[in-house]
Amino acid sequence: MPINLRRSLMKKISGLIGVTALTSMTPALAWEYVLIDDQKPAQNWSIDSQQLGIQTETPFSIQLRTLHGGRQEGVSLLEIDNGTMKITLIPTRGMNVLQAEADGVRLGWDSPVEEVVNPAFIELNSRAGLGWLEGFNELVTRCGYEWVGHPGVDQGELLTLHGRASNIPASQVILSIDPKPPYTIRVKAELREQAFKKVDFAVTTEISTEPGSRRFTLNDTLTNQGDYPKEYQVLYHNNFGPPLLEQGARFVAPIRQVSPFNTRAVPELEHWDQYQGPTPGYDETVYNLIPYGDSEGNTLAILHNQAGTQGVQLDYNLNQLPVFSLWKNTDSLKQGYVTGLEPGTSFSYNRRWQRDFKGLNLVPQIGPGEQRHFQLSFSLLKDAAAVSQAVQKVESLQAGRDTELRPQPLIQPQMP
Amino acid sequence: MPINLRRSLMKKISGLIGVTALTSMTPALAWEYVLIDDQKPAQNWSIDSQQLGIQTETPFSIQLRTLHGGRQEGVSLLEIDNGTMKITLIPTRGMNVLQAEADGVRLGWDSPVEEVVNPAFIELNSRAGLGWLEGFNELVTRCGYEWVGHPGVDQGELLTLHGRASNIPASQVILSIDPKPPYTIRVKAELREQAFKKVDFAVTTEISTEPGSRRFTLNDTLTNQGDYPKEYQVLYHNNFGPPLLEQGARFVAPIRQVSPFNTRAVPELEHWDQYQGPTPGYDETVYNLIPYGDSEGNTLAILHNQAGTQGVQLDYNLNQLPVFSLWKNTDSLKQGYVTGLEPGTSFSYNRRWQRDFKGLNLVPQIGPGEQRHFQLSFSLLKDAAAVSQAVQKVESLQAGRDTELRPQPLIQPQMP
Amino acid sequence: MPINLRRSLMKKISGLIGVTALTSMTPALAWEYVLIDDQKPAQNWSIDSQQLGIQTETPFSIQLRTLHGGRQEGVSLLEIDNGTMKITLIPTRGMNVLQAEADGVRLGWDSPVEEVVNPAFIELNSRAGLGWLEGFNELVTRCGYEWVGHPGVDQGELLTLHGRASNIPASQVILSIDPKPPYTIRVKAELREQAFKKVDFAVTTEISTEPGSRRFTLNDTLTNQGDYPKEYQVLYHNNFGPPLLEQGARFVAPIRQVSPFNTRAVPELEHWDQYQGPTPGYDETVYNLIPYGDSEGNTLAILHNQAGTQGVQLDYNLNQLPVFSLWKNTDSLKQGYVTGLEPGTSFSYNRRWQRDFKGLNLVPQIGPGEQRHFQLSFSLLKDAAAVSQAVQKVESLQAGRDTELRPQPLIQPQMP
Repeated sequence: MPINLRRSLMKKISGLIGVTALTSMTPALAWEYVLIDDQKPAQNWSIDSQQLGIQTETPFSIQLRTLHGGRQEGVSLLEIDNGTMKITLIPTRGMNVLQAEADGVRLGWDSPVEEVVNPAFIELNSRAGLGWLEGFNELVTRCGYEWVGHPGVDQGELLTLHGRASNIPASQVILSIDPKPPYTIRVKAELREQAFKKVDFAVTTEISTEPGSRRFTLNDTLTNQGDYPKEYQVLYHNNFGPPLLEQGARFVAPIRQVSPFNTRAVPELEHWDQYQGPTPGYDETVYNLIPYGDSEGNTLAILHNQAGTQGVQLDYNLNQLPVFSLWKNTDSLKQGYVTGLEPGTSFSYNRRWQRDFKGLNLVPQIGPGEQRHFQLSFSLLKDAAAVSQAVQKVESLQAGRDTELRPQPLIQPQMP
Repeated sequence: MPINLRRSLMKKISGLIGVTALTSMTPALAWEYVLIDDQKPAQNWSIDSQQLGIQTETPFSIQLRTLHGGRQEGVSLLEIDNGTMKITLIPTRGMNVLQAEADGVRLGWDSPVEEVVNPAFIELNSRAGLGWLEGFNELVTRCGYEWVGHPGVDQGELLTLHGRASNIPASQVILSIDPKPPYTIRVKAELREQAFKKVDFAVTTEISTEPGSRRFTLNDTLTNQGDYPKEYQVLYHNNFGPPLLEQGARFVAPIRQVSPFNTRAVPELEHWDQYQGPTPGYDETVYNLIPYGDSEGNTLAILHNQAGTQGVQLDYNLNQLPVFSLWKNTDSLKQGYVTGLEPGTSFSYNRRWQRDFKGLNLVPQIGPGEQRHFQLSFSLLKDAAAVSQAVQKVESLQAGRDTELRPQPLIQPQMP
Repeated sequence: MPINLRRSLMKKISGLIGVTALTSMTPALAWEYVLIDDQKPAQNWSIDSQQLGIQTETPFSIQLRTLHGGRQEGVSLLEIDNGTMKITLIPTRGMNVLQAEADGVRLGWDSPVEEVVNPAFIELNSRAGLGWLEGFNELVTRCGYEWVGHPGVDQGELLTLHGRASNIPASQVILSIDPKPPYTIRVKAELREQAFKKVDFAVTTEISTEPGSRRFTLNDTLTNQGDYPKEYQVLYHNNFGPPLLEQGARFVAPIRQVSPFNTRAVPELEHWDQYQGPTPGYDETVYNLIPYGDSEGNTLAILHNQAGTQGVQLDYNLNQLPVFSLWKNTDSLKQGYVTGLEPGTSFSYNRRWQRDFKGLNLVPQIGPGEQRHFQLSFSLLKDAAAVSQAVQKVESLQAGRDTELRPQPLIQPQMP
């Protein structure tokens, strides 16, 4: 096991109470530190660039800590402060990203769920399959990898909302720092989505950022470790509230087709890319998008505030994540004023309905031993120039092509 | 956050390994100590009046400890020994009261559930919604606050028995002691009953007792933190076994109306306030009561033994908790010989049936930002004089008015 | 409580950081050490025969440790190395036996479930009652004791696959070593399967082995602590993969009747006791067996490799465990290539169907205060001579009597 080899190596290195100078390192080898593995519990711990003997323009630090009390008892948080952006990861909840903050702008949102809830206290099957909502409050919530979508019975089994990934604690969480500039900071971990006869998925997650940057990147690899092809679905539920989301905020992306998710979303179809302020009684509208990308599938999506002076840019690839759900939950502030920019293999219908989509492969398969990669970058757009540059990139990808607005939902799921 | 302010203050104070003299305290400020919060795990810890520098007639002490093994792994217990009465609280289980004991009399009961079960090991949705029974063994079990009652489907969702409150670990558990006589001992904590789009309830619980007394008081505040009105229900499931419960024990309270909960309870209606000894095959009978109170709604309920020489008195307010379930589970000892004196907003039918009650508001609403207070005091009646005095208070409230015995259940729930 | 007496005794003895000489022991008293109880969390700990001052031909050792990360966070493993065989127990999972190894032969199997999963992270009610599969990977998995069998609704309640025992953490785990040769090593623990009004079962488990032996023995006692008779079911799901299981491996036992569990198993009935190699698409076949035993009910079952040079012998008693499920899951290696030798009170149908079996008592009752004992020994057969000797014992018990092959399943459960 490469993990174990690494571990024994690290044990030597980290003998000095977790504080190690980088000086004696061979140039090709990253500095690595095991934060959590089968032998090592999560412990309060921190390290910074000075302790590592690394000279960067912006000093950086990483901190691991554990939450206590309430339904967050025993939850690990891992905070990466790259000197400009502070990114908070949740090993206990599928390596989700709780929030990121730079320049006083917070990427994330205020859910009514105040705690970072330990999956041990969640029954996904409760609330008619909506138990997932008892823990939902992150910037990036992984949905999948067996299924995504609304709860419902498919093939005799209740598929709970958006799958299990976010409620699987990560194993083998390893921090590494590249030995040469830009000294990229990486956290790797593994999610095991396994059940005898049912599924044998391993998801290796990586989050990386560079000291001083306003950007971080997810790099996830799903492996079907089993001997049979399996259906899979994935959706990255990326959620943003104020200050980016506000009355007049805009969603901008190169889009080929827009359709309302359901009849609720039909009346606002014309304004599908515009946001209202906090609106009591609004609940949510969802639009199914099919984006355009470049010849290699690369594309982006932007959310920016009304003035166009701040925003977030999401870079990803349509060959990995071909469809996109735009979730506009511009209800009242306390209800959770938030929008989701959600690239995925699939829309948010229950899996049973997604098999019916003509011409779209919304319930893809992964063969034995096969892998699927999913890469997403999140960049804070700090000023009007950055927003403007990103919008121009979108226009360049749209290249004057039409955006089809389909007046009706692609399908009308029958309630069971 | 006032909590955080308090915390930082306390950190200074509690630097001395949790042992602090009260002497330097300003008179207006209570001595406070954070037992559990997001930064602080529950730890074995104790303090007593001597360490606090407090001179009381009866020295008191408080102890926090953690249980291990079985399904009680990681459960915190908080024991308050006020010098006369020893009260055991369960932060991990909704700040329930496990038991209280004074003068050799135990308030509480012997459930077949021997462990104090960590909610992490309970599926409330198991056993057709009766999973709650796998952890039920307390003196005071909080039921609510989204719903109470028997399991059943309401509005498309299985409501599990008696809600979730007792299976929510408390956050921010704070011990405080008043700086002047009678040096009231208080424990405050918070329960977060939250799910995105579903509910945003915060329940602050307080339990208090005075050194040397045979009484403790619950003071709970439910806040609807959301922006929408919500239905809520609450029922305090207060449970008593021997020695108070025995053949010939009596329930005494000022009562306007009694009705059998179901057909099972019809034949014993005449003896609704009397108890049998342990009776194999008895199972349970339940009576729905509507009590009388004074002009401000204050009322009481009593359970006393056959001889009238020991009892317990429950003081509460009908404006807060207008109806009352009397649960007579006088089955065999090992089956759990117990009676429940249960004031609530609601009876124990599934919520779907309680909306139908004419003239009773059994599924009340709580508006956005609104609060509801629930105060209950438990007093051990140590001798015949104390019992007699309490019974006289009941008679004074009844004031010669009739108690209507309705021969049939108020409703007959249809099974789903 | 005898447990508490033992505990206080042990506290004295184990004051020396868990390392105690046996010398001062009275001959009649076993050396005992509490590994886990309500006051004592599982901690990394080990002891060996030298520390105990015991001279055995093969030195032995015992180690307790805790796993971290992923869904195995907080799981205790207890490894008994008797000098010849290393046996790994899982206190957190019903005192299941994860694996045993001697002479380079591993008893156990490779499930797609790689972690030893903490029950806190499993919803038995998920996957239509198959949540149990998310933790299934042991050599010995206890099934029961309220019910066993496939998931399905019985008497209004979803009975989840194979009951709850394997997902109940053990309490009061006590290690003891006999004071005189052969210095038998024992681990006792208790499982509490309790729910108010539903069940009050206590299961004391004991596993024992002798230094230097290739054998270990389970000795379980189920007690109905309640006042009413209760149905119970138990099945020991004993699972073996390579090297014993391979193309041409054989199951050998004295058998009176064989019938296919379902129509899937009908075509291979003639080869019911033979194994294929890893066979993609095979899934599983199951045969219901009724074994022969000696006049006291003692019997055995054997699995041996194709060459008959290695095997495992299972000794048990038909008065305790009258029927036997032979589970042949000779699917691909990664799917979990495994066979189950499963003596039980019951077959693997849902409980609702097992009440219908004529002449077989597959849903037995246990009266108030009654106990049921279940003893099973597992012996590694290390060479051809050992295998041959075991096979001769089987032949002696079969005594030339017929084995009836019933062509059709005993029943055909109707799907709900």
